[in-house]
Amino acid sequence: MTLFPMMFTDFKRESLIGKAVEKKILEINVFNIRDYTLQRSNSVDDEVYGGGNGMLMMAQPIYDCYRAIMNGRTGIKTYYLSPKGKTFNQEMAIEMSNETEINFLCGHYEGVDERALTLINAEEVSIGDYVLTGGELPCMVIIDAVARFVKGVLSNEESTNEESFRNNLLEYPQYTRPYEYEGLKVPDILLSGDHKKVEEWRLNKSIELTKRNRPDLYKKYLNEDV
Amino acid sequence: MTLFPMMFTDFKRESLIGKAVEKKILEINVFNIRDYTLQRSNSVDDEVYGGGNGMLMMAQPIYDCYRAIMNGRTGIKTYYLSPKGKTFNQEMAIEMSNETEINFLCGHYEGVDERALTLINAEEVSIGDYVLTGGELPCMVIIDAVARFVKGVLSNEESTNEESFRNNLLEYPQYTRPYEYEGLKVPDILLSGDHKKVEEWRLNKSIELTKRNRPDLYKKYLNEDV
Repeated sequence: MTLFPMMFTDFKRESLIGKAVEKKILEINVFNIRDYTLQRSNSVDDEVYGGGNGMLMMAQPIYDCYRAIMNGRTGIKTYYLSPKGKTFNQEMAIEMSNETEINFLCGHYEGVDERALTLINAEEVSIGDYVLTGGELPCMVIIDAVARFVKGVLSNEESTNEESFRNNLLEYPQYTRPYEYEGLKVPDILLSGDHKKVEEWRLNKSIELTKRNRPDLYKKYLNEDV
Repeated sequence: MTLFPMMFTDFKRESLIGKAVEKKILEINVFNIRDYTLQRSNSVDDEVYGGGNGMLMMAQPIYDCYRAIMNGRTGIKTYYLSPKGKTFNQEMAIEMSNETEINFLCGHYEGVDERALTLINAEEVSIGDYVLTGGELPCMVIIDAVARFVKGVLSNEESTNEESFRNNLLEYPQYTRPYEYEGLKVPDILLSGDHKKVEEWRLNKSIELTKRNRPDLYKKYLNEDV
């Protein structure tokens, strides 16, 4: 549910998500909230009660759009993309990937009338501590993160196994051909064929990087390791 | 710098970012890394040294693309979108909005050859603790968050003042017309015209919501308040 359905066109067509949609592994349906407004002016927003800048999306077009989508069906979760929500993370992505259908509400302007969220029983979810012009990009971010765990979306099914955030450590540096480029060589240990040493080197690099870039994650790593 | 330039078309054309591009307040130039590969097969990726799943983007096409963009110019920051980076937040958005030009590298597959990051002196930045199929969506998220602080992008210049994350509190619930919808009424205090009481109600609601959804932020709020 969005006021800017055109923002999803490229996303549905390009890259891995585009391929999954083409192969009918994923289905992404975009609904224009404006199609449901009962205002003669076709408007969907109004001023904030109690004072404040900007405009707020009205409850009616959202609730009517929601009811048209649900069409009497129940048990489908609805998420509202908002900096006020719980912070989305990799565990939530895995959880959401078990749902057969998920509904997202993308806000715009100053936000939406609180009653819309009550009526559609929306759970608020945030992708990070920053403010965006609308909920469309965060919605695509979540679909993308969730889709990676849907069978058939990634070409190499193993690719969700070994990756960032495993054991609260960031991923180690990686190298590919050629062996030497612009005077920079691949660390010899990675060519040694000694798997144990390679694993050791990678773990140390992961620890080093996590300490530097994410002291918060590193603390978690230490606590879970001890 | 991306392997999927088409993913940016809607973003550059739609919504507030589209308007800002049209008014020439923002300029978003998308470069296809594949145009710079020297591989006869036109490929841009190869296997990982030391073993591991998936493919890695090679350094050469990235570095050549980078040099073509920079064309001898210096002092322009480059960010690599990656879950390994520092976590992007609202303060970084404000900082970045002071730059006249920013360069972004969007990764795909398992990531990029570490030497590419060294050669282009890239700072790694993450939009959150989740893994995506590529760096394109996070790049748009950052551009969107930063653009909000560029004069002329938001129609109401005040809209960046009163918003989420002020004083580490989430924003209070908001309401717009009509006064009653589906049996739900706007809290009477918001119609009272008593600004002090409205402010008080909003602060309490903010505290309540932050406690529930973001205990981590609430702790910060308490520490800065005392």
